[in-house]
Amino acid sequence: MAPGILDPVMLEQYRQDGFLLMPPGFLPAETLAEIIGAVPGLLEVDSPARVMERDGVTPRSVYGIHQQDGVFADLMRHPALLGAVQQILHNDVYVHQSKVNIKAAFAGDQWDWHQDYIYWLQDDGITRPDLVNVAIFLDDVNEFNGPLTFIPGSHRDGVLTATGRDGMPLGYEDAPQWVATLTADEKFQVSDDVIASMAQRNGMVSPKGPTGCVLFFDPNLLHASTRNMSPGRRAMVILVYNAVDNVPHDVTDPRPQFLAEPDPRALTPLAPNVATRR
Amino acid sequence: MAPGILDPVMLEQYRQDGFLLMPPGFLPAETLAEIIGAVPGLLEVDSPARVMERDGVTPRSVYGIHQQDGVFADLMRHPALLGAVQQILHNDVYVHQSKVNIKAAFAGDQWDWHQDYIYWLQDDGITRPDLVNVAIFLDDVNEFNGPLTFIPGSHRDGVLTATGRDGMPLGYEDAPQWVATLTADEKFQVSDDVIASMAQRNGMVSPKGPTGCVLFFDPNLLHASTRNMSPGRRAMVILVYNAVDNVPHDVTDPRPQFLAEPDPRALTPLAPNVATRR
Repeated sequence: MAPGILDPVMLEQYRQDGFLLMPPGFLPAETLAEIIGAVPGLLEVDSPARVMERDGVTPRSVYGIHQQDGVFADLMRHPALLGAVQQILHNDVYVHQSKVNIKAAFAGDQWDWHQDYIYWLQDDGITRPDLVNVAIFLDDVNEFNGPLTFIPGSHRDGVLTATGRDGMPLGYEDAPQWVATLTADEKFQVSDDVIASMAQRNGMVSPKGPTGCVLFFDPNLLHASTRNMSPGRRAMVILVYNAVDNVPHDVTDPRPQFLAEPDPRALTPLAPNVATRR
Repeated sequence: MAPGILDPVMLEQYRQDGFLLMPPGFLPAETLAEIIGAVPGLLEVDSPARVMERDGVTPRSVYGIHQQDGVFADLMRHPALLGAVQQILHNDVYVHQSKVNIKAAFAGDQWDWHQDYIYWLQDDGITRPDLVNVAIFLDDVNEFNGPLTFIPGSHRDGVLTATGRDGMPLGYEDAPQWVATLTADEKFQVSDDVIASMAQRNGMVSPKGPTGCVLFFDPNLLHASTRNMSPGRRAMVILVYNAVDNVPHDVTDPRPQFLAEPDPRALTPLAPNVATRR
């Protein structure tokens, strides 16, 4: 395991709140520049791993980026990320899912309130929530461009819903079933009453900050985001790390590889000279 | 005319920015309580003046409230509001349009970037932008419940579009034509390029504050708001004052009275004892 980078106060904050925002500098500037530079290329590839906004022309997300581009395969092994995630999960880890969420200027749509873990449980057969989301800000995040909004501490109540909503979301009726999990309409909805009581008890918070911030958050943390009403993009790379002893069980209808990594071998940190160069 | 309540600095700020936020206390607490108490009754009335969200069950807005309920007929004559608007417009005034926008918890939808005045010009034949929006916060306004967002100073460039978009917005295909102006899809769209260049030059701002704040804004100020993702309502009463020498010209297809007040007589302030009681 790589040396830990988070101090005990940070780790305790992550446990209590379900998230932790690290300022720019957590990753080297060169690494960040390389990631940002790789995004336009990802968006150009017309593949099932690319999901569009309802307008049909604006890329919303690209999945499986660590499988497509060496820049992201290296990124997931960066000692800073890998070390922090290992500290949080007390285990060796691999990346179960990776994506870039674009949230384009004016066009980037909202995401309704949801928890992530239920998808990985129901769709991928991952039976414990021993995963960590790592979101890397590729643009400044402000109140106008649809920041991720959390209900702090909501992860501590576990899975808040276990029943699915049938049918495909509006505009995606002809798409394969798994597309339903990738659009603005969330399949596993938490009831408004539950969200309201949690938000009234714990409040809401939208972590904001400049390009290069790294945001860790729990897979059971309730989160949402509004539309991007600003004239600037709000892109994030999100790496979903899973503990190596929490591998998916067999499911009857497995999702494509770009949504659920089939190789659960423990990641090793990049060699220091590569990590520095990157 | 009622005595002015805005000082020269406030008036200059309104001219420069196109808006002015006054803290709670601008209206007496009793007046505010009375307005808030009158809203549920307005929402119950099934009439063409009530517009629903796309879900068909959640009230989005009720129009013509000063024509429906004496509480709002008194409100528009309150010396604090009337005095401030007369200062801004240097004229006697009346209320051309009034409404309560509900922005219900979880359900209140976004409003795209738009200017208001083009509607009053094109649909109602009001040939000068000598109007003032007065928004009274009936709930606390925060970053999570879809605050009005402005591009400061954007009013100084006048009308930024003069061409309409044909067709009815999605979900309202069978509704009368004027409904198109009342929904989340704006009829007179300003191009993204214009909005982007203005926002990059002047920034964006979302005036926030507790219940009872009063927000004055120019009818040509570019504004938008996101969905309300919070568990609490974000309701506002909006009174649109017009100068008495700026009355509507004849239009071929006049809008209903609840959208365009036919009586342009100058308002007189409520007697002080009534204003205090209210």
